[in-house]
Amino acid sequence: MDAGDVLQQLSDGGTVSGEELAEQYGVSRNAVWKHVEKLRDEGFEVESAGDGYRLDSIPDTGGLAVRYHLGDSELGGDVEYHEDVDSTNSVAAEAARDGAGHGYLVVAGRQTGGKGRRGREWESPEGGVWASCVLRPELSPREASVITLAASVAVARALEDVGVDAEIKWPNDVLVDDQKICGVLVELEADSESVHYAVVGLGLNANAHPDVEDATSVAEELGEDVDRARLTASVFRELEDLLDGSREDVLSEWRRRSGTLGREVRIETPDEVFWGTAADIDDTGALVVDTDDGERVVSAADCEHLR
Amino acid sequence: MDAGDVLQQLSDGGTVSGEELAEQYGVSRNAVWKHVEKLRDEGFEVESAGDGYRLDSIPDTGGLAVRYHLGDSELGGDVEYHEDVDSTNSVAAEAARDGAGHGYLVVAGRQTGGKGRRGREWESPEGGVWASCVLRPELSPREASVITLAASVAVARALEDVGVDAEIKWPNDVLVDDQKICGVLVELEADSESVHYAVVGLGLNANAHPDVEDATSVAEELGEDVDRARLTASVFRELEDLLDGSREDVLSEWRRRSGTLGREVRIETPDEVFWGTAADIDDTGALVVDTDDGERVVSAADCEHLR
Repeated sequence: MDAGDVLQQLSDGGTVSGEELAEQYGVSRNAVWKHVEKLRDEGFEVESAGDGYRLDSIPDTGGLAVRYHLGDSELGGDVEYHEDVDSTNSVAAEAARDGAGHGYLVVAGRQTGGKGRRGREWESPEGGVWASCVLRPELSPREASVITLAASVAVARALEDVGVDAEIKWPNDVLVDDQKICGVLVELEADSESVHYAVVGLGLNANAHPDVEDATSVAEELGEDVDRARLTASVFRELEDLLDGSREDVLSEWRRRSGTLGREVRIETPDEVFWGTAADIDDTGALVVDTDDGERVVSAADCEHLR
Repeated sequence: MDAGDVLQQLSDGGTVSGEELAEQYGVSRNAVWKHVEKLRDEGFEVESAGDGYRLDSIPDTGGLAVRYHLGDSELGGDVEYHEDVDSTNSVAAEAARDGAGHGYLVVAGRQTGGKGRRGREWESPEGGVWASCVLRPELSPREASVITLAASVAVARALEDVGVDAEIKWPNDVLVDDQKICGVLVELEADSESVHYAVVGLGLNANAHPDVEDATSVAEELGEDVDRARLTASVFRELEDLLDGSREDVLSEWRRRSGTLGREVRIETPDEVFWGTAADIDDTGALVVDTDDGERVVSAADCEHLR
């Protein structure tokens, strides 16, 4: 028995007696009390009502709060929480190498070394959603791009749920009115046939406004703070739903939610820069661009939306 | 200055004086002598001729011997040698995570935990070529299959060089008369756009005959032992040549050297088993199989050649 079990028993809002809990899990009443104290330490308001406990409120951050909102989701079955962390992706990757299973989730209050694409820094102050989940999908490395696509769609869905209308920018950002609100970073280890593990990381400016150009946050869009724990859980529930579905469904929802397709874009690859109209993504997630010299397909590039 | 520098200076077969070497590198004569002793410890015969040193023979194994045969090759620019190692792929991957650069090569006398595909064991007794090289290619994960294809071709070329006529079996084995002589295992770490590093590992039954069914070795095919260090270097020189060339050239040479294409095959994926004729590989390295139900394309599967 742990604090998560107590939380689960209290989750329907009713009053549960300490004696009942102790009996159910075969532990002492004192052990139950300690777990309740742990919940209180993490910001849960647990009312002592006569002989029983009742859950009055959930904090808006922390591992147990995320776990609470995840319900029976497979992603986030285990949640590791840090106030401060170098990078949730790095922590999750290390956990995966040490054997962490599908769904193992790392959540942080802030990141001191948050990572973006191509080794770039990702500013991650207190107030944002910084979370990385270990996946063990049955995919080959050439199919793994679906994870990035699905994660972007999951973020857009979760934002829509709280009333923020967001668009996906190829390859891995989510924007509101062309301002960055979230980035997705998928890292994986594989042999030539199979992905051993993937880590899908989320940098979502929930109530944080990073000091970078062209960025926005959920709080800024809504005019009030959002429940970070609930939002984190919402993204990973949507991601689970998408990964349970077909690749085709992910691709078509990505296309529908994309702000890149149909736009004039400036593409910068390691070797060159070119301009054109973003026409589509192919089934590997590569961007198809119509240019004056014909169709170009790029899988690794920076893409800028032009006015 | 190190023993490798001394080796390089002696590599043209001439006599070089210790004084000359000491002056050239700005070290003491005693330091030069110590490096010569190291070469002797590793099995090099270095003759003391008057005031000078002359290289009389090269051992058939060891890091310096591999380095010697690699010449100015970029792959194997650094070589780490172990008599005994768990798995050269694991050691190379750890080195890569610690920052080892493109071409960093790990060679072992034998492996105690050699890895095959899908976590299978790869028997790796003394006498074989067990070697793994770190690559830092400019490839996306979906393009990375070219590394496995190129490595198989490199092995077939190197075997041809020593007089062994080998065929490539999809996805990653090299056979002589349908008996396994070599396996290739590529493992990689990537984000959704770019491979951070790949490790290409080689298990080649040079003078070792693993106690498994349907296996052969170079020694068995030739009737005499082969120089393992020279063979190791030869494979990685060929691999470098192939990776410097175009993907199309790798694919077409793979097709030409393949024993799978045109054969009746039994395909076993994680989900099902089917039979057909191996028709081609597509440009991602997936196998195209003609079956009674039409064309099937498999990227992760076991493939058995049928009579």
